[in-house]
Amino acid sequence: MGLIVQKFGGSSVADAEGMKRVANRIVATKKAGHQVVVVVSAMGDTTDELIDLANQVSPLPNGRELDMLLTAGERISMALLAMAIANLGHEARSFTGSQAGIITTSAHGRARVIDVTPGRIQEALKEGAIAIVAGFQGVSQDTNDITTLGRGGSDTTAVALAAALEADVCEIYTDVDGIFSADPRVVPTARKLNTVTYEEMLELAASGAKVLHLRCVEYARRYDLPIHVRSSFSNKEGTWVVKDHPEGGKMEQAIIAGIAHDKSEAKITIVGVPDRTGVAARIFQAIADADINVDMIVQNVSAAATGLTDISFTLPKTEGANATSVLQRIQGEIGFQSIQYDDQIGKLSLIGAGMRSHPGVTATFFACLSEAGVNIEMISTSEIRISIVCRASDLEKGVRSAHTAFDLDADQVEAVVYGGTGR
Amino acid sequence: MGLIVQKFGGSSVADAEGMKRVANRIVATKKAGHQVVVVVSAMGDTTDELIDLANQVSPLPNGRELDMLLTAGERISMALLAMAIANLGHEARSFTGSQAGIITTSAHGRARVIDVTPGRIQEALKEGAIAIVAGFQGVSQDTNDITTLGRGGSDTTAVALAAALEADVCEIYTDVDGIFSADPRVVPTARKLNTVTYEEMLELAASGAKVLHLRCVEYARRYDLPIHVRSSFSNKEGTWVVKDHPEGGKMEQAIIAGIAHDKSEAKITIVGVPDRTGVAARIFQAIADADINVDMIVQNVSAAATGLTDISFTLPKTEGANATSVLQRIQGEIGFQSIQYDDQIGKLSLIGAGMRSHPGVTATFFACLSEAGVNIEMISTSEIRISIVCRASDLEKGVRSAHTAFDLDADQVEAVVYGGTGR
Repeated sequence: MGLIVQKFGGSSVADAEGMKRVANRIVATKKAGHQVVVVVSAMGDTTDELIDLANQVSPLPNGRELDMLLTAGERISMALLAMAIANLGHEARSFTGSQAGIITTSAHGRARVIDVTPGRIQEALKEGAIAIVAGFQGVSQDTNDITTLGRGGSDTTAVALAAALEADVCEIYTDVDGIFSADPRVVPTARKLNTVTYEEMLELAASGAKVLHLRCVEYARRYDLPIHVRSSFSNKEGTWVVKDHPEGGKMEQAIIAGIAHDKSEAKITIVGVPDRTGVAARIFQAIADADINVDMIVQNVSAAATGLTDISFTLPKTEGANATSVLQRIQGEIGFQSIQYDDQIGKLSLIGAGMRSHPGVTATFFACLSEAGVNIEMISTSEIRISIVCRASDLEKGVRSAHTAFDLDADQVEAVVYGGTGR
Repeated sequence: MGLIVQKFGGSSVADAEGMKRVANRIVATKKAGHQVVVVVSAMGDTTDELIDLANQVSPLPNGRELDMLLTAGERISMALLAMAIANLGHEARSFTGSQAGIITTSAHGRARVIDVTPGRIQEALKEGAIAIVAGFQGVSQDTNDITTLGRGGSDTTAVALAAALEADVCEIYTDVDGIFSADPRVVPTARKLNTVTYEEMLELAASGAKVLHLRCVEYARRYDLPIHVRSSFSNKEGTWVVKDHPEGGKMEQAIIAGIAHDKSEAKITIVGVPDRTGVAARIFQAIADADINVDMIVQNVSAAATGLTDISFTLPKTEGANATSVLQRIQGEIGFQSIQYDDQIGKLSLIGAGMRSHPGVTATFFACLSEAGVNIEMISTSEIRISIVCRASDLEKGVRSAHTAFDLDADQVEAVVYGGTGR
């Protein structure tokens, strides 16, 4: 008997059939003797359709009104889900983000959770009901306006609620069986991971793995809340995201938990930058002021003869045009020679808490890439991650060779992808 | 410079084009120097589509959840309308029923407005913004749950808000040019009325005219709030619903304001009822206990020989089966002979404050029906209305003959019907 928060994405509740399947699963959990809180996203493509409508009436929709519009999506799915559960003979009550006490900042479209005051949820649970909560939304503390949490928002809602309710576990239902050692579409022999640590999951999410969003993992780590990532289409055990790998598994714990890859970034190289104190700071301040997230940064040793150096960094392709124009504006002030923009890159990351105690990881990694004929253009490391940038066209080849080199291949194909992706 | 509440139905905002057209009209009112509060219904068929979805997951959706679901419709339309207005360079803020302070009973699907506390609306107006309010919805005083107001709910929202804000006028936009002397689809020469009194409008609405709902007219009368019913597709002056016909027009005021007809009712005749004190009361108490609304009631003089009488009443066809089974249950107790159910009837009503001082109205009415070959089956009168029941197949013939007999025909066809009907 525990308290379980279950989150279902848009692809799990895309139509009435999906609603009923999910309702059955929720009721099964309830019947097993647990208290159940469900967080649900908007049905299928609802959010995209609403954004289309907004663009039809306004080229640049106001943030407050866009949030008001988009939150209608979860309102529809949570009410339908509550009805489907009631139809199975169990009481379910739906709550908007505001009713569930998800208090946020007032930054429309990317609000952050400040506080969770789930009084109405606790009351519903006490009365034996299943609580259904709209994901992705909250209410701003200052203006009392409806807000949305941005990408991955429903996962964040689920984890934030689970933490506030001191739930035993937050189950994130998706259309794959869990977290894999690599993207099964690229590496058919990818292995489902039984456990991943918060740190590994953070590095995986930051490196391009799409299953869980960074913010929700950060939240779970802060409250030491176990996340169970599993499929809404099967009853298989999925992947547990926890503080440490279990004791029993430590001996045979792989050095590398997984390999992530990402084709969504571009590389900008600023050529001929004067090697003076404060120049890099000035450049990245200008980039930050334009609200652009930079990922990897590499600065070469300057050539003594010229006193000039090159600075390269990667960033989301969608920010490329913006960053280029920001740099052009400060070219005169900084005095660099030119800007090179390259959107044909791929990023490949090895992640694993085990690599801390295995100094040979980097050597093995680079050797296998070399054998596969993959040229390394940039390198960046953390304590439990090594990332390299290569040509986009070499990326999948690199993923497969590293997967084999670190002995991650399963004996058979384990992954089944059931549907699209939720929010 | 005044405060105007404008209500737009679902057919006016059925798509992005409609949104933009309505936004232009709202901005024109604002530019003319008025403060503007807009009440909007769900887009086009949204509500029906949501009800379809609900029926797909549950045969009998829970009232609380159905209200949660349906209110998503207005949320979408109000946010889009606010964006369309912003796109014209004017600030607009959307508010849910709850945010607008529409406080109701907790009767889901048919909540009644208890109080209106429009603090956020007044604040928005003070800051120069246009306020957009979701029609049809409120929040229950007791449970803090989302409620809906039932049929005609958006009109009620508009009038209730206008009264609370002490607005100068509540404009109800629709797809016809106003209130007509008869249904233009039946009487092509029907005349648009410049003014109708609250009393006349109440009788018209109760007698089958669909343009304004009973509850909103009752509300307007209570607060002496002028309603202007007009087309969202043209700039023509529509029909004013007010306390009295204007002084200047009194001399030439028609005896009859309009003719309404209704095919949605059925007639039940209880044959051979013992003519004892309390029997009718017992019958209609049983009907009322089943929440069935009865319209006309006629009891014949009992035949002295038998001590038995017949009682006939009309009611919505949708309640027919329910009422019949209620009566069958009490047949033994009351001791009547049989029940006759007839759903092939039509109701024709003459309405006009002028008939108070014109005793000949009834005679003229019955004579014209007789000439047209329409047989009268039931009669019911109020101070400003005469209704008769006839065969459904004779109804339109009766409407046309009465329209002519009371000199209501316009010189030319005035009515244009632009689209479907809103909520």
